[in-house]
Amino acid sequence: MASLEDLGVSAFINILGALVFLILFAVLRIQPVNDRVYFPKLYLAGKRAATHDTRSAVRRFVNLNLCTYVRFLGWVPGALRMTENELVAHAGLDSAVYLRIYTLGLKIFLPITVAALLVLVPVNVSGGTLLSLRKEVVFNDIDKLSISNVSPGSNRFFIHLLMAYVFTFWTCFMLYKEYSNVAFMRLHFFASQKRCAEQFTVIVRNIPHVSSHSTSETVDEFFCRNHPDHYLGQQAVYNANRYAKLVKQRERLQNWLDYYQLKYERHPDKRPYGRTGCLGFCGKQVDQIDYYRARSSELEKRMASERQKVLNDPKAIMPVSFVTFDSRWGAAVCAQTQQSKNPTQWLTDWAPEPRDVYWPNLAIPFFSLSIRRFLISVAVFALVFFYMIPITFVQSLANLEGLEKVAPFLRPVIEVQVVKSFLQGFLPGLALKLFLYILPTVLMIMSKVEGYVSLSSLERRTASKYYYFMLVNVFLGSIIAGTAFEQLYYFLHLSPNQIPRTIGVGIPMKATFFMTYIMVDGWAGIANEILRVKPLVIYHLKNMFIVKTERDREKAMNPGSIGLGENLPSLQLYFLLGLVYAVVTPILLPFVIIFFGFAFLVYRHQIINVYNQEYESAAAFWPQVHSRIIASLLISHLTLFGLLGTKKAAYSTPLLIFLPFLTLWFHKYCKSRFEPAFRKYPLEEAMEKDNMERASEPNLNLKSYLANAYLHPIFNLFEVADKEETVEVRIDKAETEHQHQHHSEDHMRSSSQYHEETQLRSTHQTTYYHEESYHQESHVRSSQYHEGIHVRSDMDLPSPPHYVYH
Amino acid sequence: MASLEDLGVSAFINILGALVFLILFAVLRIQPVNDRVYFPKLYLAGKRAATHDTRSAVRRFVNLNLCTYVRFLGWVPGALRMTENELVAHAGLDSAVYLRIYTLGLKIFLPITVAALLVLVPVNVSGGTLLSLRKEVVFNDIDKLSISNVSPGSNRFFIHLLMAYVFTFWTCFMLYKEYSNVAFMRLHFFASQKRCAEQFTVIVRNIPHVSSHSTSETVDEFFCRNHPDHYLGQQAVYNANRYAKLVKQRERLQNWLDYYQLKYERHPDKRPYGRTGCLGFCGKQVDQIDYYRARSSELEKRMASERQKVLNDPKAIMPVSFVTFDSRWGAAVCAQTQQSKNPTQWLTDWAPEPRDVYWPNLAIPFFSLSIRRFLISVAVFALVFFYMIPITFVQSLANLEGLEKVAPFLRPVIEVQVVKSFLQGFLPGLALKLFLYILPTVLMIMSKVEGYVSLSSLERRTASKYYYFMLVNVFLGSIIAGTAFEQLYYFLHLSPNQIPRTIGVGIPMKATFFMTYIMVDGWAGIANEILRVKPLVIYHLKNMFIVKTERDREKAMNPGSIGLGENLPSLQLYFLLGLVYAVVTPILLPFVIIFFGFAFLVYRHQIINVYNQEYESAAAFWPQVHSRIIASLLISHLTLFGLLGTKKAAYSTPLLIFLPFLTLWFHKYCKSRFEPAFRKYPLEEAMEKDNMERASEPNLNLKSYLANAYLHPIFNLFEVADKEETVEVRIDKAETEHQHQHHSEDHMRSSSQYHEETQLRSTHQTTYYHEESYHQESHVRSSQYHEGIHVRSDMDLPSPPHYVYH
Repeated sequence: MASLEDLGVSAFINILGALVFLILFAVLRIQPVNDRVYFPKLYLAGKRAATHDTRSAVRRFVNLNLCTYVRFLGWVPGALRMTENELVAHAGLDSAVYLRIYTLGLKIFLPITVAALLVLVPVNVSGGTLLSLRKEVVFNDIDKLSISNVSPGSNRFFIHLLMAYVFTFWTCFMLYKEYSNVAFMRLHFFASQKRCAEQFTVIVRNIPHVSSHSTSETVDEFFCRNHPDHYLGQQAVYNANRYAKLVKQRERLQNWLDYYQLKYERHPDKRPYGRTGCLGFCGKQVDQIDYYRARSSELEKRMASERQKVLNDPKAIMPVSFVTFDSRWGAAVCAQTQQSKNPTQWLTDWAPEPRDVYWPNLAIPFFSLSIRRFLISVAVFALVFFYMIPITFVQSLANLEGLEKVAPFLRPVIEVQVVKSFLQGFLPGLALKLFLYILPTVLMIMSKVEGYVSLSSLERRTASKYYYFMLVNVFLGSIIAGTAFEQLYYFLHLSPNQIPRTIGVGIPMKATFFMTYIMVDGWAGIANEILRVKPLVIYHLKNMFIVKTERDREKAMNPGSIGLGENLPSLQLYFLLGLVYAVVTPILLPFVIIFFGFAFLVYRHQIINVYNQEYESAAAFWPQVHSRIIASLLISHLTLFGLLGTKKAAYSTPLLIFLPFLTLWFHKYCKSRFEPAFRKYPLEEAMEKDNMERASEPNLNLKSYLANAYLHPIFNLFEVADKEETVEVRIDKAETEHQHQHHSEDHMRSSSQYHEETQLRSTHQTTYYHEESYHQESHVRSSQYHEGIHVRSDMDLPSPPHYVYH
Repeated sequence: MASLEDLGVSAFINILGALVFLILFAVLRIQPVNDRVYFPKLYLAGKRAATHDTRSAVRRFVNLNLCTYVRFLGWVPGALRMTENELVAHAGLDSAVYLRIYTLGLKIFLPITVAALLVLVPVNVSGGTLLSLRKEVVFNDIDKLSISNVSPGSNRFFIHLLMAYVFTFWTCFMLYKEYSNVAFMRLHFFASQKRCAEQFTVIVRNIPHVSSHSTSETVDEFFCRNHPDHYLGQQAVYNANRYAKLVKQRERLQNWLDYYQLKYERHPDKRPYGRTGCLGFCGKQVDQIDYYRARSSELEKRMASERQKVLNDPKAIMPVSFVTFDSRWGAAVCAQTQQSKNPTQWLTDWAPEPRDVYWPNLAIPFFSLSIRRFLISVAVFALVFFYMIPITFVQSLANLEGLEKVAPFLRPVIEVQVVKSFLQGFLPGLALKLFLYILPTVLMIMSKVEGYVSLSSLERRTASKYYYFMLVNVFLGSIIAGTAFEQLYYFLHLSPNQIPRTIGVGIPMKATFFMTYIMVDGWAGIANEILRVKPLVIYHLKNMFIVKTERDREKAMNPGSIGLGENLPSLQLYFLLGLVYAVVTPILLPFVIIFFGFAFLVYRHQIINVYNQEYESAAAFWPQVHSRIIASLLISHLTLFGLLGTKKAAYSTPLLIFLPFLTLWFHKYCKSRFEPAFRKYPLEEAMEKDNMERASEPNLNLKSYLANAYLHPIFNLFEVADKEETVEVRIDKAETEHQHQHHSEDHMRSSSQYHEETQLRSTHQTTYYHEESYHQESHVRSSQYHEGIHVRSDMDLPSPPHYVYH
């Protein structure tokens, strides 16, 4: 056990680090040159714009107003000024509810900390000898403040037991209140939401193939028959995979063309020349503007033929469709019921928001889904428990002997003893660091393989995988030394009643470790989050080497997002630490509280000024947060049970057994009470909104409103390419309202050319599907499109509906 | 280990026992006096009737046709003659699918037995010394035929492993086929089902209380608003608890009155006199006919006032309602969606069949439900693991010293050594036997406390509780000697990898025990089932002492039912034994096969001739059967894993680890593929049936058809009591089709007397609710009502709709 002094030193270093970060942040954020790094959200929200201002060159990059340097915490009032409602309007409900997790942490742990410090610390300190405090001994050891100081068999464990009950009840009470609040906020959000496409839309997967019918016809027929009163139309999903690749290529070419044209404009005397080969070093010398123009027009021809192929090939139509209804009631009914006798066909569910859709996963068949999920769950288990094996393998490869063989010229350097020992210590660590760095990405890829169709569910799945990893490798792994694999072996060879005992004994001994962990990961880590070192560096690097146009600058601006996949699990780890140590080593609690308070401020600031809202899931992650905190409670009971078991507290320990059962029951109750608000949409609500809308806008043409909602982003490039077709797609759908019954006959007669036209003129909206992740960097993507359009934007196309969130 | 000879003796005794039972059955079933014991189903189905035939008194009771005595298996062809479709029509889908469990057992185990006997037995017999069979050693010990005979570390375990894979795949294949079959049968059953009330009805629970509105008004308003196109009407549920008690009393009085009147008619010279006190021994001497007439009329007055109270007291209306829709589509939508923002209110679900409703549980509030389920799950856990504690307590009370103190006069008898030792051996056993005898009843009561609203779900819940009891106390309890409580302690102090090892080692040693168990419980037990000893004895006892009228005789006839609550778990135990021993001791398999074949014949006969179908759940129990067999597979893998672990088969054992994961994945796949057919009703199907019906019966008045469907049985007695009111209740509801909007104003003005009238005239159907179990003996109940009506049945009331199944 580290002494209080050791801990003090560690705290000093970390607080100093955090302060340095904050001061750096205070200085950097007010430099105009960093504006796009620290306020990207304001640019996206249109509250700031790239102005060609009249300030001097220096003033445009550096803030020379010295007054603004004084207050290094000047950002705090700004972060707190916004009310919750404004926050919901500014950054969405997800962000607002995410911040509530931090306030929940404060609400749970502040009273617990006060109670624990007032009651448990004196009890622990007095140890076996009640009321004979010896001050000189007490304060040089954390252990003296923890439950370890109470002598075995003492009746004082009743106090700990009582406090465990009090803490659990308090936590459950706060959880209940918060769940109820969030559920209310979600319902209120839906109720006050403006009309949007996903309210009327249902995603239908696994549409069966009927011979001599196209998918669109099958869908039309099925829904006309089974939802005759409410069915409105559908948007088929096309496999525009290769086309998307060509689009990307053309964008790149266009970018270069712009760059050279800009260059030529600035220096009209010098026509830009370059080589065509790799990086401009080899190949033929050509006029760059002519060269890129030629390649661009060639590519456009290939795109046109590919477009024909996508539209005419029936195999390009995926067995997935977005089906729209004429009322929220109709959509709610369709999403919540089973459609077909075969439960693997016609799977309906709420359509995610248009920007939340993860297109590549739309076409995975049902059977494959269940195999994928099985394989991924096996893989996650392996990853959690055996992740050290590949790393050890890599480490064994990346040793010095191997390095010497590959690069013999390095031998003299490596043979120097200092360098050698440094490398030997450094290389294995590097492999581990690299692994941990790419872990969230790996988990996200795994989630994508599982086949979820919305970004929000992908993030939630990633979060839960990451939580298991943290629980086993950070929490258990720290308590029981050794890798998770060794732990697994250890646990399998241990009798079940020994497991909580082993952990229970380890818990108080690791308190200082976790305090240090909280300071490093929680305090300094959060300060690093606000400084945004990585985006800052990358932005300036890009600015120096890559940025050619203003649009490129916009692209280089990476606002990022909250990153639920990573942040939820680490938050949940803090809840776990707080709850486990509340009874055992209460002195850890202030550290947790400081984390929650500080992180709340930082994330509030970041959400207001930095992060881009990629989608709106209306706090769909809350049930997960709730059940993880419940799980933390259960783990805390189990460890306390094990700990007391070693303390020979035979009278008090059995009383603890009711606590996990009560907690479980509470969880079940909450689940049935609140979870439906997150899974279903009540018909009462739907009907109410429908009626209100009908009363206020009796002449609303819903069909035209919904027409373009679930267009694949790639579709807009079709429009740019074929302007004459575009107009036809955007015709008022009301005119064709009852044509879809007749449409099938038209369809049968269609020649290849005619087919394309009817396709685009029909009531079915064509949505284009391609495999690559267009969403991973949603911001980048959308600015690309802005650019793509801007390039030829003398046409002045109206902004497509899914851009409204910029 | 018992030798083959020991087993042979046991087999001989049991086969002899079974034969005796069968011969007894063959003799008894052809006696006319036992007709109501062995063919009650035919009476209920109207295929036999109590005829006052002209045969002599002897011939009426005894069969003197000697030819019929010859063939003691004469019932078998009769049992097999009916096709499955006829069986569904005769006894319902539940019974037909129940029989499929036996054929599934045969389909799974016949090929497995052949393979195991041909492959594994030779491998086991040859033991460590391959191909040197010594016949004189082999056949005197079961152990030689089992896996125990293979020497540790032998490579021959690969064969066992291979067979484990083959058996698992075969079982999964058959399970898949069967699940698919049963799901198809269920959907086909629904599709070909005639119009019935539950297709249009949804049960709504937890209707919120709105001040100044009655429950009926609240329901009307809510559904008119949220399901305006399909809502038809509702039937409120009344708390007619006390009234039901009075009805029961009056029935008893009426019965006695009938008896004395009959007696007086036969001997008109002697008026029946008796005493009013207990059992006719004390009290005043009265004329019985006058006495019972007076009491009966007095009771009727009390009933009338109670009836007024039920109808006028708003507190008598439960917050539950049966809501009917104008189409199957509307009902399917309402049952499968969430109605209200508050997920604890307006809970909708499919209404069970009218005869399947368990009325007493209808009014349990949501919050109480979750507490009840929690408490019951704790209680079941306690019952399974600690059931020996109360029994030991009772046993310690019921010892001889206690008996001597209570009854000193018995001392001379008890002190005789023989009697003493007999009693000391007998009394504790008696307590255990009594406990096991009442166990299913106890479990059923527990399920009722849990608050399920249909008899079918109550039986399923009971079955799953009983399964856990059997698994722990019969299966594990036999393998690891000692009570379940000791096992629990044992398991908690054992490391997890030791548990399968301990069981694995115990498995082959207990093979002979389980063979004997199968012979006793399976062979002789099933023969006892067909003999119906208990109903036979009870029927004749009742006939001798209680039966006074023909209706009493009908009441004494107890057809019973399949008893899923008890039979499913024991069937599942046989699957478990078969699968666990298939690889370990294949010689056990023929015993299981004989059980399945014999039990199939017996239950087919009983279902055709004896059991009364209490409800139709359309094979809703199948998902449970499926998952229990999957669980058996997993247990068999675990035990084999443990067993091979002790056999030092280091090369082959690890290969086993994939099997449980594959099985689990298979289970998950089946669940998503087939389970929706048992939980949901596809809209496609509903729409199809609606359209067909509309085409064939365009003028159907659904409202009047549904009007009386969900009347509480007690309501018919209201009708009998007040014939003039009855007519009003049965008016054509179509006339009042759009009155329910205006009804609330009427309601406000109503005086107490007026109130009753509008209540009965309104569109709301009144269904009466009382707490006591009216269903526990559904047959008895319905015959009671028959009687109740018959007593006064010169009125010739039409038979109420829920009697059609007799």
